[in-house]
Parts: sequence; structure tokens; C-alpha cells
Amino acid sequence: MKSRNARLFDIIGDRTGAVVIVNGHDTHVDHNFRYFVGANSGVFEGSALIVEKRKLSVITSPLESSALDGLDMDVTVAKGAGEFRSLLKEKLSGFDSIGLNFPALTYEGYRTVRKNFKGKVIDCSEAIAQCRAVKDEQELKRLAVSCRIASKVAAGIPDMLKEGMTERALSSAISMALYEEGSESPSFPPIVSFGRTSAIPHYSPGGVKLRKGNFVLADFGGTYQRYCSDITRTFLFGKASARQKDLYGTVLEAQNSALSVLKAGVTGKQADAAARKVIDASAFRGMFIHSLGHGLGLQVHDGLPILWPKGKDKLEQGMVVTVEPGAYVPGFGGVRIEDDVVITRNGVKVLTDAPKELIECL
Amino acid sequence: MKSRNARLFDIIGDRTGAVVIVNGHDTHVDHNFRYFVGANSGVFEGSALIVEKRKLSVITSPLESSALDGLDMDVTVAKGAGEFRSLLKEKLSGFDSIGLNFPALTYEGYRTVRKNFKGKVIDCSEAIAQCRAVKDEQELKRLAVSCRIASKVAAGIPDMLKEGMTERALSSAISMALYEEGSESPSFPPIVSFGRTSAIPHYSPGGVKLRKGNFVLADFGGTYQRYCSDITRTFLFGKASARQKDLYGTVLEAQNSALSVLKAGVTGKQADAAARKVIDASAFRGMFIHSLGHGLGLQVHDGLPILWPKGKDKLEQGMVVTVEPGAYVPGFGGVRIEDDVVITRNGVKVLTDAPKELIECL
Repeated sequence: MKSRNARLFDIIGDRTGAVVIVNGHDTHVDHNFRYFVGANSGVFEGSALIVEKRKLSVITSPLESSALDGLDMDVTVAKGAGEFRSLLKEKLSGFDSIGLNFPALTYEGYRTVRKNFKGKVIDCSEAIAQCRAVKDEQELKRLAVSCRIASKVAAGIPDMLKEGMTERALSSAISMALYEEGSESPSFPPIVSFGRTSAIPHYSPGGVKLRKGNFVLADFGGTYQRYCSDITRTFLFGKASARQKDLYGTVLEAQNSALSVLKAGVTGKQADAAARKVIDASAFRGMFIHSLGHGLGLQVHDGLPILWPKGKDKLEQGMVVTVEPGAYVPGFGGVRIEDDVVITRNGVKVLTDAPKELIECL
Repeated sequence: MKSRNARLFDIIGDRTGAVVIVNGHDTHVDHNFRYFVGANSGVFEGSALIVEKRKLSVITSPLESSALDGLDMDVTVAKGAGEFRSLLKEKLSGFDSIGLNFPALTYEGYRTVRKNFKGKVIDCSEAIAQCRAVKDEQELKRLAVSCRIASKVAAGIPDMLKEGMTERALSSAISMALYEEGSESPSFPPIVSFGRTSAIPHYSPGGVKLRKGNFVLADFGGTYQRYCSDITRTFLFGKASARQKDLYGTVLEAQNSALSVLKAGVTGKQADAAARKVIDASAFRGMFIHSLGHGLGLQVHDGLPILWPKGKDKLEQGMVVTVEPGAYVPGFGGVRIEDDVVITRNGVKVLTDAPKELIECL
């Protein structure tokens, strides 16, 4: 497979000769820095990366440079802010225009670029997202492991449940299990909701206690070599009522419907519709209140593609997406079932293999 | 104590009437949004906050608004990007100038502001950092719990050590223990280094195995109600050599020296010098290769103050800082001892109470 930077310039063409990433500090670091550099460690706060079709150049600090040892790129160490700026100016001097990633670059970073580069600046965020949407072999391997870890943890949830435990306690138990199974960390704070709170899709787990007859919704994932998994399973603590079974069965059917249409060439809109029509033909019409899925990779929301009613672009082989229909009945509870899949020529390869039939935890 | 926004405008004065925070997505969210809003949950991706001296106004999405229930502020829900922009335009129309936080605002966010506000824009990042540096009572309580949790985990590390275990395994065990003790999550990926790798301050734990005679350096923290702790302890796995004891004793003496001078009115430079002169008068001269400490709060690096040779500003009561001298001998190993303290009128209150004498784990 081509290098990531070569693929990026297949998309950008001759619109610009270089894409420049300037990281801020703390969380204000662009994930694309790691993507193009391919390093397994390092944070690269306050560092710059110049991506060209056939070359990568990094300006970084003495503390970070060792993370780049052995990688095929031009690394320059700047000892302070002044040296950083003059190196940036020097390295950008050969370009008429550069591309930036507007949604991840800080305004401070933009000003630093602007003070040291007088040419044209264009937004390359769409091209970068397109490049990242199609995963290469190394990424697919890492995602497969990350998803296997999350599946193992999901399969173990029934054994973690105890009457009276709080959502927060289950969320912690899931996080701990992710570490035990080999994740570097949870990919986001696990969402755990019991009973009525399961009807709130983006709920933060709280002090609600587990009672017989509750739905247990757990949405979580881990990272493996920085690649994220994202899985949701919904269990029943006790015996399911007829309505609970109906809700669960409807969401599972919706997910299977989406999985059966997904393949290269299908649009996000078509996949979303396949799931949505099942729910809208049931007693839970209108209760699927979010999108079907999103891209997955170095980030839990990896930009592209989005599986939703506005998704007009055709899916491509090697894209990795979540498929996560849900239905939410206020005051009663909700069900969501989420898997991570690779888009293939003829269908999908499901990366998360935890059981999906309704489990009654007795 | 005054509200956080009132304190911010005590610093800003009449330079501007409002500070505007516009969040991006994923990690590109400004921590100051949570700081001023004071919500315990919610991510507030793509949301805006207008901070005035006596008023907070939020524009957010339907998914996020419930996290603001019961808080004293003006909350408006925008259903899409167009509605968000027109609400922003409307709410900013009364101001001649606004303040922004350049290091955390994305360039995309800046453009959104600029398209909807034609007045003057100033950078308020310094004022915001100054405001956040002095903690209020709620913050101090949360930090105290967060530090107590980290201390308990630190005190338990000797029992986690087994000959042949990898740095990565100890890092996971520390993360799990943080959850067990009541943290929401690690505040950053734990740094664990064995033997020679302990001489690299920002090391990422790897496959290095624990052997008798190794230093075990563990630098980690958790969060409690979003507030971060940050502690480092260095242990000896086996019996310490004379040189190892000398190195450890020197760093501990350096830390005690800094702790003894720290109080309101002292500068970061003076505190740093108190530690540095101990190390530079020892056999480990020049081997303290980083700053003495940093502010701690909602973020592990909370902006201000910085305890380093350039720190000219006087410390104030209620600031919370790390005190973390270290000395690093290439090829041999390093020692760092880090505590979190509140600056008081006459000294410091130490929040991390794990033992500090050299522990030989036999």
C-alpha cells in the first residue's frame, strides 16, 4: 500500500505542495500528527509536521525527539520557541501555498504559521479526513486487536453485574477489564446506564443502582497501539418483559438489516435507512434518535465516513465504521447494539464478536 | 468566595465585556468551558459559552443541554450549525469587543466567531490562566480527594511488584488501582520506568522487565470530579546500592528544600532554585533537567504557575502546584519525587501523603 502522505496527495492533487500541522499543548494536539508520523509513542506538544507527497519533516523539542528514532523522516530539534519559529519559517519558505487542518489547529498555532509564512493558506481538513477514512494494513491489524479486546470485555459484563451496584461501579469495572485484557486505556469514559437512564444515549454514569428488570446498556471501547474500539451491548438484569424483548429484538433486527446492505459502493444514507426503516415500522417508530454510525480509527469519531441520512458519499473498501442503531423509550429504557466493521467489496468484516442475542442475567 | 467569572473580570478589568469560548470536537474542547460552567458531566463539543462579569450564557446541542440542568445560567439549545451561528451572532451583537482563548480555540472556531462578530477581538488566555491558578473551595476539596486516591495507589505499588513484570503491566495495574480507589480515570497515561529507563523523564512504559536492583519510577495521577492529581514515587526493587541511596537522598533533600521555602509571596524561580542548588551541590550536578513544578487542577498542566528558573511572579494563597525535583543519570537510572501542594500564607499544605523515604522492595 502507498504511504499515508502519498495517499493524501492523491486526494489533494496539485492544490498545494505541503500540509502543515502545528500542535498546541495538552489536548490541543492534532491526531493527524501521529497518523502521518506513525510513531507508537510521543505526544508531540508544540511540535510541527510538514507533510509532502514524498517527505515528512518534523520540528520538535528535545524531550520528544527520541519517539521518532528509526522512522524515515527529517527530524529537527528546536530548543525554544524562537528557534521553533525560525525553523518553521525556513522550512516553509519554499512553498507558494500550504494546507492546514482548520478544525484541529489552534488559533495560536495559526498565528504562528501566519507570522512565518506569507503565501496562500487553504483548508485541507476534508482531504485529510478522506485519507484517514480508508485504513491501511497496519491500522486494520491494530483495530482488529482493539476490537477483540473490547469484545472479550463485553462478553464478561454479565459476570460483573450485582444487584444494587451503581452505574459508576460498572463503568470502573469495565475500564479495569480493558486494561486487564491488554488495552492501553479506555478509548472514552464508558457509558453505563441502568433501567430508565438507558433511554439517554449520551448519558454519564452516575449513582443509579442496578435493580431486577433493568436494561444494562454499556457503550465503551479500548485502545490498542492507539487504535480505538467502540462497542455497545445491552443486557437484561433479570427476566425480560414482553416489551423489553420486543424493543431488543427490533434493534437487533435493525442492526442486522444495516449489516446486510453494507458494502463498498453503498452510501451512508442507504445503510442508515436500512436500520431506520426497521425501527420505524415497529412499535418504536421515531425512537432511533441518532445516526447509524461513524468512522473509527485513531479517534473514536474518526471524521469520515458518517452513516446518517445526509451521507451521500459511497463507502470504500477498507473503511472502518461503527454500526449502532438504538431505540430509546423515555421513562422506560433504551437499547443500543453496536459493532465495528471493515467495509469490504462484497459486504463487511465484523471486528467485534461478543454475543448479540438478548442475555437475561439471572 | 467570588464566582469564577467575577474573579476573571477582576483580572480583565474593562479591557473587554465578554470572554467567548467556542468548542471544537473530540479533544479540541476548551477546558475553561467546564471551569466556568462548573458542570460535573457533559463534554460540550461544538458549544459556545459567553462569560460576563455577572452572567454565563451557553449555546449547546440538544444532546448536551441536560448536563446544565439546575445550574444558574442562560442556556439556549441550537438544533443545527445554522441555528448555532445565528444565535452566536445575536448574543455577541451587544459587545464592542470580546476576549478569546487563543491557545485552545480552533482556527475553525475563530472563523465562526469572526463571521458573526465584527468588533475587536483580544487574547484573554493569560487572564484566564491567572484566574484558574487560584483554586476556590470546591476545587480544593476535589483536589484533596483526587490526591488522597493517588497517594493510596502510590503506597500500594510495592505490593504490585514482581520480578520479570513489564513496565506496561505495572502501568496497567496502577490504572486499575486508580479506578478501584474511586478515580474516574487516570489523569494521564502512567509513566512507569525500570532501571536504566528511569533516567528518561517523559518515558512511555514498554516491555522492559523488572529485575533485582532496579529503580522503579512511577509518575501518575487520577481524576476525582474531573480534578487531577499527579504524584511520583521511586522505589528500589531489591537492596539499594550506595550510589542509588545517594541519588535518592539527594532528590529527597532537594524536594524538602523546595517545600520549606514555598509560601505565598515566594516566586517560582526561588522555589526552583531551592531544589536545584541541592542537586547541583551533589554528585548529580546538572542532572535535574526539567522544571520543579506546575499548576494542577482541571488539567494536569493547569497553565499557571510554573515553578522554574523563569518564574518571576509571586505565588498566591490557594494556588496548587506540583513539587517534583528529579535527577537523571544516563545509563544508570533516575529518581523523581513529586507531591501536590496548596500554597498557604505561611507555607504549603501537602495533599499527597504517600511515604517518601526510600523503600527497598525485597
